[in-house]
Order: sequence, then structure tokens, then C-alpha cells
Amino acid sequence: MKDVPFTLELNAPDFIPSQYDKHIRRTLSAMKGQYSDQESYACLLAKEDSLLYEVYEVTRPELAGELLQGISIVHPGQVGDEYFMTKGHFHTVLDTAEVYICQKGQGVMVMETPEGDWAVEPLYPGCVLYVPPRWAHRSVNTSPDEDLVTFFVYPGNAGHDYGAIEEQGFRKLVVERNGQPTIIDNPRWSAPEVEK
Amino acid sequence: MKDVPFTLELNAPDFIPSQYDKHIRRTLSAMKGQYSDQESYACLLAKEDSLLYEVYEVTRPELAGELLQGISIVHPGQVGDEYFMTKGHFHTVLDTAEVYICQKGQGVMVMETPEGDWAVEPLYPGCVLYVPPRWAHRSVNTSPDEDLVTFFVYPGNAGHDYGAIEEQGFRKLVVERNGQPTIIDNPRWSAPEVEK
Repeated sequence: MKDVPFTLELNAPDFIPSQYDKHIRRTLSAMKGQYSDQESYACLLAKEDSLLYEVYEVTRPELAGELLQGISIVHPGQVGDEYFMTKGHFHTVLDTAEVYICQKGQGVMVMETPEGDWAVEPLYPGCVLYVPPRWAHRSVNTSPDEDLVTFFVYPGNAGHDYGAIEEQGFRKLVVERNGQPTIIDNPRWSAPEVEK
Repeated sequence: MKDVPFTLELNAPDFIPSQYDKHIRRTLSAMKGQYSDQESYACLLAKEDSLLYEVYEVTRPELAGELLQGISIVHPGQVGDEYFMTKGHFHTVLDTAEVYICQKGQGVMVMETPEGDWAVEPLYPGCVLYVPPRWAHRSVNTSPDEDLVTFFVYPGNAGHDYGAIEEQGFRKLVVERNGQPTIIDNPRWSAPEVEK
């Protein structure tokens, strides 16, 4: 761990950082239960445990004043009519934000709060997305043939909480309908219990 | 202040955000005492109070989990043989980092700690710079004719402390020597007093 300033390069066409500490690869088998069309999921998985997305991360101390940065690459593809996407997560320290700068491709970020508010924002080259504190987030690649590549920055103490999302998914799904990305309700999702 | 996700665009050639809350313009008169060659400074200022750099910032609550983001544009030029540069600052909350992603141009970031350690890192398109907690930072445009444009992200609670730098400047200056950017000692700088 260097405590001195350092630079890295993000070079086209892949934008893989010239140096990184972690390379996470998520294949179809890691997304069990996440796709709505479970028959298509089983069928695809029987053929091949395809690579869905990759994350290159630069490690820093997990402290509030530090920033974690890296590149996320979601490959193109579909499970049934649902696009390839990341698992998605809340930050463990819920009151922490994240900034995404899209480098390449076409997609959307699906987001929601613990209270059930939701939002879907576009991702395309030159686009910067602000995910405010408290919003869970998942990248979805809506291109038929191009990687979705984003550079991300978030506070060092944020952490990842996959549990809530793994249980019932996000409130909204992004699927292809008549050749277009379309937002639909997730039938598995149910509203959070509100304390009375 | 929106508490929902939002996007903005950074479009070539200027990369000015499609939406922002603050536009800071620093002219030559705001840099009094910062340039080593005070005669050249006075001479230039007598002709015109030129625009040296601009910052476009998106406002968010000044809290630890939030992230502040924006675009910094340092215009090309020199005061004597010293390149146009930003004032430079420590973060008021010293233990906070900053990430810079260079969008355009050629330059360097001059950095130092309160203890007197120093570093100079290059900035060019595709380059990402990590400024760790505790490092003061100043952008310097070393191009003869092009803007230096960087996108920055830092924690919402960081704040700016210009005082220490305004007093004696950074330890190192970046000047043109035989047509090349060259790092030299700042004659005004003296080592911090170490407690015994």
C-alpha cells in the first residue's frame, strides 16, 4: 500500500487500469436466483458458465477519507429477455455515495432505496452518474454487442451489502421488448415493511 | 439539492458539465504572491487581469459520505517561466483523498504533505491520479496552447485550506527550461518546524 500519490492509465478500447490490486470475475453461476426467467438461466448455464462482468479495483485502506476506484466491465448478452447486469448492492455504510463515469457502451443504472424508491438513469460515454447515499445500484448493459465500461469512485469505508438484493432482487427489471430496453416490475419484489 | 440519482454530461471539446452549481473563475489578481517572478507578475497584471483557471462544481451536502465532483480547467500560459496553475490547497479535513481523471491537455499535479514530503505526477488524457489523504495539491498546465482539463471527486466533508500554501507556496515550482517543464526548488519555501 503506497501512501504517496500515484497515477494509472485507462486506455481505450478496454479501459482496464494499467495497475490494479483486485480483478473480480462474475460468471452466470454467481447470479443464481437473480434473473427472472429461471428456465433460460438454467438452459444457458447448462451450455456454459459465461463471464457476465468484471471489476478491476485499486485497493486503499477502508477508511472514510480514502477513495476506492476502479473499472467495471459488463459484457453484452441476455438471460431470456433480461440484459446482463451486475449483482448490485447497497453500501454497508448506507450513507455513502458513489460516482460513475461511463467510458464506453450503452446501459443503465438501476437504483433503489431501502424504502422502495427507485430510479433508472442512462449510461453512455461522457456521462457522469451520481448515486447519492442510501441508493442501491446495479449496472445493466443494454447494448447487443458492446461492453459497458464505467469508472467508479466511492468512499473507502463504504463496503458492499449484497444480502438485501440477493433475497428479492431490485424493484425494477430491465428487459428487451420489441428490440428496446424496457423497465418492468420485478414480480419477486415486495414492498419493505414499514414500522408503525 | 436533489436526493435522487442524477446524471450530467462531460462533452468534448471543453468538458464543461451539462449542469453545475458553482462556477469559480480565478484571474491573475487572485494569485498575488504565488508566482516566483514577481516582476513578470506585476507586468502581466498591468496589461490584463487574465483568466488563469476555472472550476465547475456540483454542490452536495458537505458530509463525509457524500462526494463532490466537478471539472477544473487551467488555461495555458506563463508568468515569467512559471506555468499557469491553480492556487492549490490542503483539505481542511486533512485525512481526505481526491481522485483526478484527466480529460484533456498536458500538465502535472504538484503535491506535498505538511511534513515537507513532495511529489509531482503527470496529467494527460486517460490518466487517473490518486491524491492520498494529507497531500496538498496544485494543477499546473505545461502545454503551450491547450487547456488542462481534469474531472475531480473528493469527499463532501473535505473542505479547502488555502492558508498554508498562500503563505510560502509549494516546495517545488514547475517552470519552463529549454522548452521543457522542469521542477525546481521554491526559494520562498522553508521546512516545517518539527516538534521536539
